[in-house]
Amino acid sequence: MTALQELEKRFARAIRIDEAASWLHWDQSVTMPKGGILDRSEQLAVLAEASHAIISNPEIGDLLATASVKDDVWYQANFREMQRMHTAATAVSPELVTALAHAKAKSETAWRLARNENDFNVVLPAFEPLVNLVREEAAALGDAKALSPYDALLDQYDPGRKANEIETIFDRLSQFLAEIIPEIIEKQGKWPSEPAIRADVTDQRKMGIRLLKTIGFDFEHGRMDESIHPFSTGTIEDARITARWDKDDALSGLMAVLHEAGHAAYTRGQPKVWRNQPVGAAAGMTMHESQSLTFEMQAGRSREMSSFLSGILNEAGYRTSADYVRRALQFVQPSYVRVEADEVTYPIHIILRFELEQGLISGDLQPKDLKTAWNDHLETHLGLPGPDDLEGCLQDIHWFDGAFGYFPTYTLGALTAAQLFQTAEKEIGKEKLATELGNGDYSSLQDFMAREIHSQGCLHASSNDLIAAVTGRPLSTDAFETHIKHRYLD
Amino acid sequence: MTALQELEKRFARAIRIDEAASWLHWDQSVTMPKGGILDRSEQLAVLAEASHAIISNPEIGDLLATASVKDDVWYQANFREMQRMHTAATAVSPELVTALAHAKAKSETAWRLARNENDFNVVLPAFEPLVNLVREEAAALGDAKALSPYDALLDQYDPGRKANEIETIFDRLSQFLAEIIPEIIEKQGKWPSEPAIRADVTDQRKMGIRLLKTIGFDFEHGRMDESIHPFSTGTIEDARITARWDKDDALSGLMAVLHEAGHAAYTRGQPKVWRNQPVGAAAGMTMHESQSLTFEMQAGRSREMSSFLSGILNEAGYRTSADYVRRALQFVQPSYVRVEADEVTYPIHIILRFELEQGLISGDLQPKDLKTAWNDHLETHLGLPGPDDLEGCLQDIHWFDGAFGYFPTYTLGALTAAQLFQTAEKEIGKEKLATELGNGDYSSLQDFMAREIHSQGCLHASSNDLIAAVTGRPLSTDAFETHIKHRYLD
Repeated sequence: MTALQELEKRFARAIRIDEAASWLHWDQSVTMPKGGILDRSEQLAVLAEASHAIISNPEIGDLLATASVKDDVWYQANFREMQRMHTAATAVSPELVTALAHAKAKSETAWRLARNENDFNVVLPAFEPLVNLVREEAAALGDAKALSPYDALLDQYDPGRKANEIETIFDRLSQFLAEIIPEIIEKQGKWPSEPAIRADVTDQRKMGIRLLKTIGFDFEHGRMDESIHPFSTGTIEDARITARWDKDDALSGLMAVLHEAGHAAYTRGQPKVWRNQPVGAAAGMTMHESQSLTFEMQAGRSREMSSFLSGILNEAGYRTSADYVRRALQFVQPSYVRVEADEVTYPIHIILRFELEQGLISGDLQPKDLKTAWNDHLETHLGLPGPDDLEGCLQDIHWFDGAFGYFPTYTLGALTAAQLFQTAEKEIGKEKLATELGNGDYSSLQDFMAREIHSQGCLHASSNDLIAAVTGRPLSTDAFETHIKHRYLD
Repeated sequence: MTALQELEKRFARAIRIDEAASWLHWDQSVTMPKGGILDRSEQLAVLAEASHAIISNPEIGDLLATASVKDDVWYQANFREMQRMHTAATAVSPELVTALAHAKAKSETAWRLARNENDFNVVLPAFEPLVNLVREEAAALGDAKALSPYDALLDQYDPGRKANEIETIFDRLSQFLAEIIPEIIEKQGKWPSEPAIRADVTDQRKMGIRLLKTIGFDFEHGRMDESIHPFSTGTIEDARITARWDKDDALSGLMAVLHEAGHAAYTRGQPKVWRNQPVGAAAGMTMHESQSLTFEMQAGRSREMSSFLSGILNEAGYRTSADYVRRALQFVQPSYVRVEADEVTYPIHIILRFELEQGLISGDLQPKDLKTAWNDHLETHLGLPGPDDLEGCLQDIHWFDGAFGYFPTYTLGALTAAQLFQTAEKEIGKEKLATELGNGDYSSLQDFMAREIHSQGCLHASSNDLIAAVTGRPLSTDAFETHIKHRYLD
């Protein structure tokens, strides 16, 4: 066996173990009886350790140093990803890994308590040490990757992405949104005030399945279940989604279905020949989010899909019109809670988090000052008075679970979706695509994404390289701005 | 860390990986879309390899040689189980392990084809090499364990069990059954001929849940799902069962529920402090089967439970009487198919398999002669003419999947159940237990088993030692004979 073959074998093993862990996570969220949590945590800890041990093994370093790699872009890219993974796995000392795991568990538990009491001070004693450890982690990762601490964290979720690029993009976006949001709100102020569509959960489930079948979700290679937070997980052969039904708002569940189906389509479309190799994986979370937002935001909330969705609702006995559905899916309103935000005000939530988390990692912002900083920022950018903690700085789990550098991928994903969709429209033909979407038919859109994005794995070194290869230019706010103007002001 | 602590840590890791694999198996049988099979096989292969690598690691041998073990029966037993596992994992060469895995996969696939064509000759070319490899495996295990080849296979499923003990037991049992079966059949010949109870599958599911709740199955620590073959899997915290509903026979599904609930009760009752250690596991398959058969056969098909079950059926709108249910659950009839056999004729199927598989392993019986040997045996012992292959030698997957030495545990389990139930009756009080069972109340029975069996893990070196410790005598056919005479002739 050559050094490269040995590497391939070992990485395949680690990847299969990670897949096993992902199914245990799925089970935990979907089927596991709640009394099983302790055994499950230990099973997951052992799998994480086993996978990490394979990747961080010093022998991998030796093999990487001696392997000779075929002069082929895929083999080269796979080798690059192996190096990335080994570097990341060895950058942080085992002691710090353990300390982080404990601190995350403590902070997450305290966060749940703090939410029950609607009081940020409850989580603070557990959150402060976690932030300190994440700073250490960021510094260690930064050293190993020759990146600034915060860029090193970003790089975990969106390889190659830098804070200064994001800053440029977000500055422009802030300016754009500050101008356009009042215009949109004024325009929508004339809309009739309409209640959401209430629907029986069994009917919603049937409509969800109908929707999935129409857009081409393959139930021989996937499932739809239910969980508290919708998510998607899986492999090329078995990509599952979960839904959550709200009896007071049928459209919210269907939109989540489209969102998760976009993630699942990405998973299903990954390159088969590289199925258990690093290069066979998705190109980071920005790109993943671009696929879910293409399915949900770009296509799903379009005028065309509104007509299809109203048809589904009518057939299920819920009388409504295409116009009503469109207004419900496109209503814009500044709000406190990120996950409930519309696509226009959503970036403001992300920009807030991007600024604050940079401060937390650099030390410019201390954890104890987070709440004040949060509320001040909201007042400045959304014109809303400071919320309570539950709807304020306690609303997201990410930071309290140690995930910094993740939030930006949501909005970068939205911008990427807009830029990709624009290119897809050109290639497919605007009218053809519109006609298809009017029938809930995602096939041309899906073919485009499968060919241009899904099948590319992480052949490109960064999502920016991939976007540039597909759309002819690096990521910018242009397509998103055009999209928002067209959808909300035309 | 002492050598013993290091051993405990490593075995815990292997056990948690095995648990993860068991959930992936559960998922594969219950929820996985069928298109996921290839990815799943690779995930399972990697987990099996990872667990085997931990147990077979030569460092385990060194640690076992140097560890000093506390003078405490549990610590000593745990150490003994570690030695057992390490010996078994290192007895067979990696080449043979791989060859066996491939031969099993081929033979299993060929078995499915052979069943489709109802032709034993279709599986024979794949089955012959598998039998040869299993002979090699048995010889290697036998060398390592200082046992005969067949005893070494038995030992995998029922530690310490020897073929010559089984022979004595089965000889006596054959004689008993040859005498009593005609008597029972004659007696039951006077019963009215009655059709099975047909019931809607949704109703059967509800009755299954009702039954589980009544007997004390804890849905906070378990689930009931559906699969082609009912099974049970899990850990102390999360023990699940699956059911299969037959719309033409409501009682068959409910009996399978009781059977699997018996397995799950054993899993739930294992000693918590040893939860991830070898000694914390069940005491082999004979003992496991004794628990499922206590729930299903000893308690479930009793006169008392018939009355409770007829109540459940009546409440669900299926009019029936306690007498009818009892007759349906106690009807005896020689038949070809093991899994459909009643408890009286069941052992004949096992005795057949026990004799033939000893021949296959020793070489006295060649795979090509299996079919003839099978059919001859049936004619001699059941008085039935030779069946076709599907209902004959192709009916069970076990051998074609390389499992030899497993079959005896079914009947040894039935005998163990009878012997344990007799002791339980004495301790609880015959009348009290009967009253409880009349209400579907398994609590005293379950308490007895939890205390005497479940919580003992594999503290004892063999199931025979455990049975002797609980009932005061080694396993014999006495209690089973008493039980059969009482139930079928009184």
